[in-house]
Amino acid sequence: MSLQERLVSGDVRALARLMTYAENNDPEATRVIKGLYDKTGGAYVIGITGPPGAGKSTLTGKLTKALRDCGKTIGIIAVDPTSPFTGGAILGDRIRMQDLFTDPGVFIRSMGTRGHLGGLSRATQTAVRLLDIFGKDYIFIETVGVGQSEVDIVKTADTVVMVMMPGLGDDIQAIKAGIMEIGDVFAINKADLDGADRTKIEIEMMLDLNENKEWRPPISKVVAVDNFGIDDLLEKIQSHRDYLQSSGELASRRLRNTKQELVSLVSDRVMEFILKKSDKGFTVDDLVERIVSKDMDIYTAADEILSRIKE
Amino acid sequence: MSLQERLVSGDVRALARLMTYAENNDPEATRVIKGLYDKTGGAYVIGITGPPGAGKSTLTGKLTKALRDCGKTIGIIAVDPTSPFTGGAILGDRIRMQDLFTDPGVFIRSMGTRGHLGGLSRATQTAVRLLDIFGKDYIFIETVGVGQSEVDIVKTADTVVMVMMPGLGDDIQAIKAGIMEIGDVFAINKADLDGADRTKIEIEMMLDLNENKEWRPPISKVVAVDNFGIDDLLEKIQSHRDYLQSSGELASRRLRNTKQELVSLVSDRVMEFILKKSDKGFTVDDLVERIVSKDMDIYTAADEILSRIKE
Repeated sequence: MSLQERLVSGDVRALARLMTYAENNDPEATRVIKGLYDKTGGAYVIGITGPPGAGKSTLTGKLTKALRDCGKTIGIIAVDPTSPFTGGAILGDRIRMQDLFTDPGVFIRSMGTRGHLGGLSRATQTAVRLLDIFGKDYIFIETVGVGQSEVDIVKTADTVVMVMMPGLGDDIQAIKAGIMEIGDVFAINKADLDGADRTKIEIEMMLDLNENKEWRPPISKVVAVDNFGIDDLLEKIQSHRDYLQSSGELASRRLRNTKQELVSLVSDRVMEFILKKSDKGFTVDDLVERIVSKDMDIYTAADEILSRIKE
Repeated sequence: MSLQERLVSGDVRALARLMTYAENNDPEATRVIKGLYDKTGGAYVIGITGPPGAGKSTLTGKLTKALRDCGKTIGIIAVDPTSPFTGGAILGDRIRMQDLFTDPGVFIRSMGTRGHLGGLSRATQTAVRLLDIFGKDYIFIETVGVGQSEVDIVKTADTVVMVMMPGLGDDIQAIKAGIMEIGDVFAINKADLDGADRTKIEIEMMLDLNENKEWRPPISKVVAVDNFGIDDLLEKIQSHRDYLQSSGELASRRLRNTKQELVSLVSDRVMEFILKKSDKGFTVDDLVERIVSKDMDIYTAADEILSRIKE
């Protein structure tokens, strides 16, 4: 059987191999997806983001277990910020999810950047699509922090859960600045700690500033390690899903995300093309030398390359 | 006088206006730089990065004051992670730098993303170049957090100072994973708090893993609010600068950064071109509709656009 057939028939080893292709941005993954494109779009994608230490992994694990109890199948993609130089993701967090690894209804994979501009975002999209074709009901995209690239990735989800915790103090400011806006549902984890109410008030205040939105993100208090509040959080995710569907927002979100992905795909390919280019009378390295020696400015060099591409 | 002439003659209002152009990625900024490209490369660029709450703003402020006491002029670019949707950076931190705003030898500007892919990186590069042409001796690029896009921006600096603090605990793991590798000099701020020695040991251990490097990043303990250790940190930055110059690494860093910037510039322009394109028998929106309705897969659509670009 071909990889394609094995993927559709539910062969986990085929999925695992394709996920590795996805992570390496190997064209084999997209070739398989191409032939099965009509099988995409069935899974519901949930993004889990928030500052380091908020307990996102634990929460993802508990949500997964709750959904498993309802008979749903799950894919988890853990997006790790790794070095732009060496690649390779080492995160202690993952160990906490270990018990899920033995459940055949759950597929977990960590993804690092592999030093490629935009590569992590592309790899994640491919991975989501593979899990979707494989037939997973829910796919979690979980980030390690709230950096811009992580935010860009997580906002391709259908529902974004922003995980906060009490006592973030002044740092909430930094997180507030824009990034919190992508939250569709808020979870205050470790809600048994002092300051949970204050955190809730701060989130409410921030949401008040954004009153023009049709959807007011609900806030759920949870204690993931104790499995407290998980059902409430799941209900809130479900009500966001209902809203997206009834309002038509789900379709327009997916349209917007598809557009962004398409543009990135093309842009990545153009970039690869430029970097390989050397047969049309110039190399990028030659131009770089000229820029550094002030023989040419960088903007004129960019014009130069553009005009060669069009030839 | 033209903006160009005013910039070179040290007119701060011309600089301020051009920095706004830079922030908006207005081509007027690059037009001015084009004509003055031979005046670039004189400033020394220092990146200040680290997790939220480490006191990066305060530290940047103290370093600035120390350099001002030596008669140096300074530019500060504060890179803020703002919403991909609304733009606009609000950060309480900045207020702490207020006393520097009155010093004519210091120019400070915050930069947000303005919702444009790669836009913040491009805007920051343009801003650095303007401050450089203006004649600033040192330029600080300070980030709010350690997200991937912030790391990508800050590693264009000549010397990257990674600001840590005691008690990061488990979270140091997440920061360790790759991102710490970009630090040329480490500063443990708030070194009067418990755990500073442990943090130092953890950083040393992490550096031990990277023994093959020619430059071993030194670690400086500082208490920025008390102005403690600032001179020591400045000396360590200076010794890194000496190393870069004597080893030829400065030239190769700048070469590498120029290459990356050139490729991004071209890629951005291609992306703009794609999004505007509608006269050659297709629009991106048409293709997106077809993808979403499963009439075409996204990879075939990307091929379609690429072949049209080459026409």
